[in-house]
Amino acid sequence: MKLTKLQDKWAAGGNGLNGWCSIPSSVTAEIMAGYDFDSLTIDLQHGLVDYQTALTMLQAMTASGITPMARVPWNEPGIIMKLLDGGALGIICPMVNTAEDAQAFVGAMRYAPEGYRSSGPTRAMLVHGGGYHDAANETLVSLAMIETVEALSNVDAICATDGLTGVYVGPSDLAVSMGYKPGLDRQEPDVDEAIGAIMVAAQKHGKRAGIHCGAPAYLSSAFVRGFSFATIASDIRLIGQAIGQNIEEIKTA
Amino acid sequence: MKLTKLQDKWAAGGNGLNGWCSIPSSVTAEIMAGYDFDSLTIDLQHGLVDYQTALTMLQAMTASGITPMARVPWNEPGIIMKLLDGGALGIICPMVNTAEDAQAFVGAMRYAPEGYRSSGPTRAMLVHGGGYHDAANETLVSLAMIETVEALSNVDAICATDGLTGVYVGPSDLAVSMGYKPGLDRQEPDVDEAIGAIMVAAQKHGKRAGIHCGAPAYLSSAFVRGFSFATIASDIRLIGQAIGQNIEEIKTA
Amino acid sequence: MKLTKLQDKWAAGGNGLNGWCSIPSSVTAEIMAGYDFDSLTIDLQHGLVDYQTALTMLQAMTASGITPMARVPWNEPGIIMKLLDGGALGIICPMVNTAEDAQAFVGAMRYAPEGYRSSGPTRAMLVHGGGYHDAANETLVSLAMIETVEALSNVDAICATDGLTGVYVGPSDLAVSMGYKPGLDRQEPDVDEAIGAIMVAAQKHGKRAGIHCGAPAYLSSAFVRGFSFATIASDIRLIGQAIGQNIEEIKTA
Amino acid sequence: MKLTKLQDKWAAGGNGLNGWCSIPSSVTAEIMAGYDFDSLTIDLQHGLVDYQTALTMLQAMTASGITPMARVPWNEPGIIMKLLDGGALGIICPMVNTAEDAQAFVGAMRYAPEGYRSSGPTRAMLVHGGGYHDAANETLVSLAMIETVEALSNVDAICATDGLTGVYVGPSDLAVSMGYKPGLDRQEPDVDEAIGAIMVAAQKHGKRAGIHCGAPAYLSSAFVRGFSFATIASDIRLIGQAIGQNIEEIKTA
Amino acid sequence: MKLTKLQDKWAAGGNGLNGWCSIPSSVTAEIMAGYDFDSLTIDLQHGLVDYQTALTMLQAMTASGITPMARVPWNEPGIIMKLLDGGALGIICPMVNTAEDAQAFVGAMRYAPEGYRSSGPTRAMLVHGGGYHDAANETLVSLAMIETVEALSNVDAICATDGLTGVYVGPSDLAVSMGYKPGLDRQEPDVDEAIGAIMVAAQKHGKRAGIHCGAPAYLSSAFVRGFSFATIASDIRLIGQAIGQNIEEIKTA
Amino acid sequence: MKLTKLQDKWAAGGNGLNGWCSIPSSVTAEIMAGYDFDSLTIDLQHGLVDYQTALTMLQAMTASGITPMARVPWNEPGIIMKLLDGGALGIICPMVNTAEDAQAFVGAMRYAPEGYRSSGPTRAMLVHGGGYHDAANETLVSLAMIETVEALSNVDAICATDGLTGVYVGPSDLAVSMGYKPGLDRQEPDVDEAIGAIMVAAQKHGKRAGIHCGAPAYLSSAFVRGFSFATIASDIRLIGQAIGQNIEEIKTA
Repeated sequence: MKLTKLQDKWAAGGNGLNGWCSIPSSVTAEIMAGYDFDSLTIDLQHGLVDYQTALTMLQAMTASGITPMARVPWNEPGIIMKLLDGGALGIICPMVNTAEDAQAFVGAMRYAPEGYRSSGPTRAMLVHGGGYHDAANETLVSLAMIETVEALSNVDAICATDGLTGVYVGPSDLAVSMGYKPGLDRQEPDVDEAIGAIMVAAQKHGKRAGIHCGAPAYLSSAFVRGFSFATIASDIRLIGQAIGQNIEEIKTA
Repeated sequence: MKLTKLQDKWAAGGNGLNGWCSIPSSVTAEIMAGYDFDSLTIDLQHGLVDYQTALTMLQAMTASGITPMARVPWNEPGIIMKLLDGGALGIICPMVNTAEDAQAFVGAMRYAPEGYRSSGPTRAMLVHGGGYHDAANETLVSLAMIETVEALSNVDAICATDGLTGVYVGPSDLAVSMGYKPGLDRQEPDVDEAIGAIMVAAQKHGKRAGIHCGAPAYLSSAFVRGFSFATIASDIRLIGQAIGQNIEEIKTA
Repeated sequence: MKLTKLQDKWAAGGNGLNGWCSIPSSVTAEIMAGYDFDSLTIDLQHGLVDYQTALTMLQAMTASGITPMARVPWNEPGIIMKLLDGGALGIICPMVNTAEDAQAFVGAMRYAPEGYRSSGPTRAMLVHGGGYHDAANETLVSLAMIETVEALSNVDAICATDGLTGVYVGPSDLAVSMGYKPGLDRQEPDVDEAIGAIMVAAQKHGKRAGIHCGAPAYLSSAFVRGFSFATIASDIRLIGQAIGQNIEEIKTA
Repeated sequence: MKLTKLQDKWAAGGNGLNGWCSIPSSVTAEIMAGYDFDSLTIDLQHGLVDYQTALTMLQAMTASGITPMARVPWNEPGIIMKLLDGGALGIICPMVNTAEDAQAFVGAMRYAPEGYRSSGPTRAMLVHGGGYHDAANETLVSLAMIETVEALSNVDAICATDGLTGVYVGPSDLAVSMGYKPGLDRQEPDVDEAIGAIMVAAQKHGKRAGIHCGAPAYLSSAFVRGFSFATIASDIRLIGQAIGQNIEEIKTA
Repeated sequence: MKLTKLQDKWAAGGNGLNGWCSIPSSVTAEIMAGYDFDSLTIDLQHGLVDYQTALTMLQAMTASGITPMARVPWNEPGIIMKLLDGGALGIICPMVNTAEDAQAFVGAMRYAPEGYRSSGPTRAMLVHGGGYHDAANETLVSLAMIETVEALSNVDAICATDGLTGVYVGPSDLAVSMGYKPGLDRQEPDVDEAIGAIMVAAQKHGKRAGIHCGAPAYLSSAFVRGFSFATIASDIRLIGQAIGQNIEEIKTA
Repeated sequence: MKLTKLQDKWAAGGNGLNGWCSIPSSVTAEIMAGYDFDSLTIDLQHGLVDYQTALTMLQAMTASGITPMARVPWNEPGIIMKLLDGGALGIICPMVNTAEDAQAFVGAMRYAPEGYRSSGPTRAMLVHGGGYHDAANETLVSLAMIETVEALSNVDAICATDGLTGVYVGPSDLAVSMGYKPGLDRQEPDVDEAIGAIMVAAQKHGKRAGIHCGAPAYLSSAFVRGFSFATIASDIRLIGQAIGQNIEEIKTA
């Protein structure tokens, strides 16, 4: 089983820059894969993408060497396993609120005896090579989203989950759960403190800490702070930014 | 967040006439949206439609101003939230048999602190406007299907669920559950009585009562009886009716 | 090569009742195929259907035994041959205005030496059987649309085309070409006379005469008049009729 | 409701030869249906297929008379019912580890009072006929996969489940669960013994025993041993076999 | 037939700002339609879009009121008419090199007696209203691309074509034809002179002059120069710009 | 612009082994690309594939390094250019019967001044690199099919076409044109002689000679004879071969 870009980056002590695919299109996926991301995550939760389209997006990413990942709609084994069999090398799972949630998630990611993933990596074996089965449990990236006050209160137990690669902060839901409006790149002291606490908990257990970001500057500061995985704005936000800028320039010419 | 047709109708004291989309096609969805329905429900349960196609159907309905809704395959948070994020303004949930079922359903429809819906209304915000987050919990339509004897026995507790918009009678499954053959527009006294009891329970708790109908005359009588939301035969039945009539006229000419 | 329903009907001296598929969906195609039509035509011209979807529609019609046909967007060999290879057993070609047009059309329908159709009936052989190549030239239905004043003036030469199965009146375009508004079931004496002349020209050359109709009564009268192939309103019109009727009944209840 | 090929075969005392569809395409499904299988199973678990594509595959199989089946991603009622409503006549459910799992599975397959399947067989009624509701509970094929050591220890209780058609051995996962590498056609004595025990347990309870196979010879021996349902290698393995053979012949010419 | 945004802009003496859709997705089309363009052109020539997907994109644009347009792959009547029937209100035709080319193009856009467009505006009538047939010839926008030295030499004759709305400069192909490398926003004096000459020829015949641009500043200067229709960089370029900028900011942080 | 596998093979004096994709699926395309072919041709003529699906197939082939090619439905510039812009590195054009046909084909493949291909290699530039425009005219593979007696009589003139990479024998259509039944691997002396003459004509003009084959042995002999490009049976035939073999083994066990 060949390692891909995110794994190489982490092995070399670097941080993983993640792109976010919310548009259901193998064309936008392939365009994104042409840029210098370490991983790309297809968002099957809030993105407008379902499995069959995600499969074509995974195919379109293969040539790039970027680590293909997916966020699932919910912590359910069926869709987690389908995406892994389809070639995803990492899964971000939303709303992991308890240690039990984390164990269910990680169990779905791993073959027996470590977990209960069913064996049948139809496309994964095709594109990631013959040693897939033996390497999968150790190689696949599992990131549990910490995005509620309940998760925050259980973050130590969640981070203690054996086999979990790391946690991933969902700042918008976390802030909503703390009584704020949704949005990225939070400035509220208590939300920021919570984000820091999640990172520290992960590090304590030797786990990766990742975070969903909006602006490049915020993302850069997250790397400085100690996060080793961070996502820059989704394809939908990116295309919106560019259209906005271009039209603004024209209207004000 | 702009109000749509069903909401305006209800606000004005009227009843909501709902169309039913079982064909997986943005073309039939757009055709349906050209007629004088107040809402259109894409059926992801018994209809032949899955999320990715439902998304194109939601897009095709937008210009009409009709309230776009969906029935989910089962009471599962993943697909409920995906459809809301995709722009559905209402969800009909099948097989809500207990107050716990109803709470799980309503929780998936609402942002914290009222519920546990995850924030990320990707398309919803695009088409329903910037105030989406603040208005969503109050605006989205949640209808729990009452369609078993178990649900019937719990109907008062279900109707008491905070945040639930109303209940929706599934007369065919209800009748099957009571020992009859499937079918709409039930005439059996005990089924009819059960339907009436559901409506009364809803009204007692200030909730909407809706019902799945077959013939126009039955639907009209349901409005008279006190239901404020009713569905006329699905696109598949409609096209069948028309073909049948046309061929009949030709064969007997 | 097995004969299908239209061919049997014609062989028995009957008239062919044709359905019209404008919705790009294998589901509506399968629904239509469940009714008592002799043939179904997928409309790739004015219908909202392109080849890849038409293929799934052809598949969905197979079990019914109805003769699957297609109208092509234009008199071009590429798409005519693709649809035949995909299993269509008949082609309606729009805007055949001259004998040269008719010869080009028929040539694309037939293997050498009668025509220039390229051999490779990938799906056709799968579903219509091993004798496909030998039987195709004689079995496939080719209908040239007569729908302009130019075509009308050349109708005798067009009907004389060797290998052509028949002509198909496009009353709406014909009327537009004669200076009227578009529409089916024409009542204007000169348009009606032109339609009659087309039928007579076809019969003189031993060819089939077909016509696109709107109302069942008009279609029935076309059969009486001598047409042996006629189309009743498309799936889009049918669904519209039914919705209109149902809503009307409800609104006036 | 018409019986299909697998049911006829079983009724005549024969064994069911099952084909396996992992490619998401109505074209490969139709090709497979052209061969002498008794049933074809669309694999929504490890196959690369989701519901919307599976629907077109079910349509493409209809003309063949082969019994259309599906394997679901997980033991979840939503997708089981959707596939049945879409026309599947049998469901293979993965990872049935306990009697409770089996009861949940069988309940989703059957209408009240035997189960909790919701009524609305939209396409099933179209293609399988008007008596569908009455015959469905008795006619639909439900196969629970036995593929873990836990399931093995509960096999007697699982096989005792009322309404279950039979069990289906997943030898690869079973072997993984027993500490071996994945793969079909197991030769290890303890795995083979376990497979035999599953078959015997099924027979004891008057249930069908099925098994997933690789090579034709292994499959034949499974029928001899007493299995009455067996699957030969998937479409993806088949196409790979043929390409390998052809290229090998060319390279060594 | 309702007027749309481009037509209103022109009627008010303004210039049309056109967006360009190369990604085959109704989602990107809907995103683009949320911004302040006057028209959006789906590119079926160099874009990665074919008819069936273009149809869903046309549907996704409807709610915005932006004028939906399409560039066809080649000057062929079949695809021009299919796109108009699908609801496009304007067509950009590539490689119009002679007056004959222009006449063939315009003829395909117009109903008899002005042209030879076949009548059957299936979706166009649904979304643009009942007066479609009468208004179409005068309302639909036809832009002939001038992008070769041959076209340049015939520009006066092309601009004289009755019924043509205007010409559209393809600067990249034009420059290639003049011996330069491809690219937008040309600075070479002779190419710039040619572009000016095309604009003047259009104005002389009372026709619109449009141009394909890259940078906002170039586009703004084109409006100043006298062009009344101009396109800003495609969705693919826009998303690339934004990704590039974001990654650049992160890498240099 | 990077060279791909077929080009490397030819540069090294080897022969190109071509695979043939008739199934409209990115999954089968990716499977095929995992085997040791030098090029893969997506068949848009007799295959069941149209542009939008072909695009996903081109994407799925990219990682393999195999040269992606396509056969077009007919000698039409629109679809030739669309496939090249989509990333195809070679085109096989059917029914090239005259030198004029060949010039039209080659012209559509080449940018000015050598041809009339329009510039806008949207995906080609993305995946084949920045030097695409400059290298394309020399690098892209153009193969004209010789498959009628008319083509045979003009083969010398066709082979003399400047810029044409070579010719490709369509033995089935050629045989049909000569009065035989369709089929590959022809044994008739006159057909075999004609095939030899085509190869010799190509070689005389320094052009490649390719041929469509059935059995591996025939293909090997074609390489021996002097052809430097040959196709082995399509994905549909391959899957059929394998199913046939497996079922035969089971039935005879």
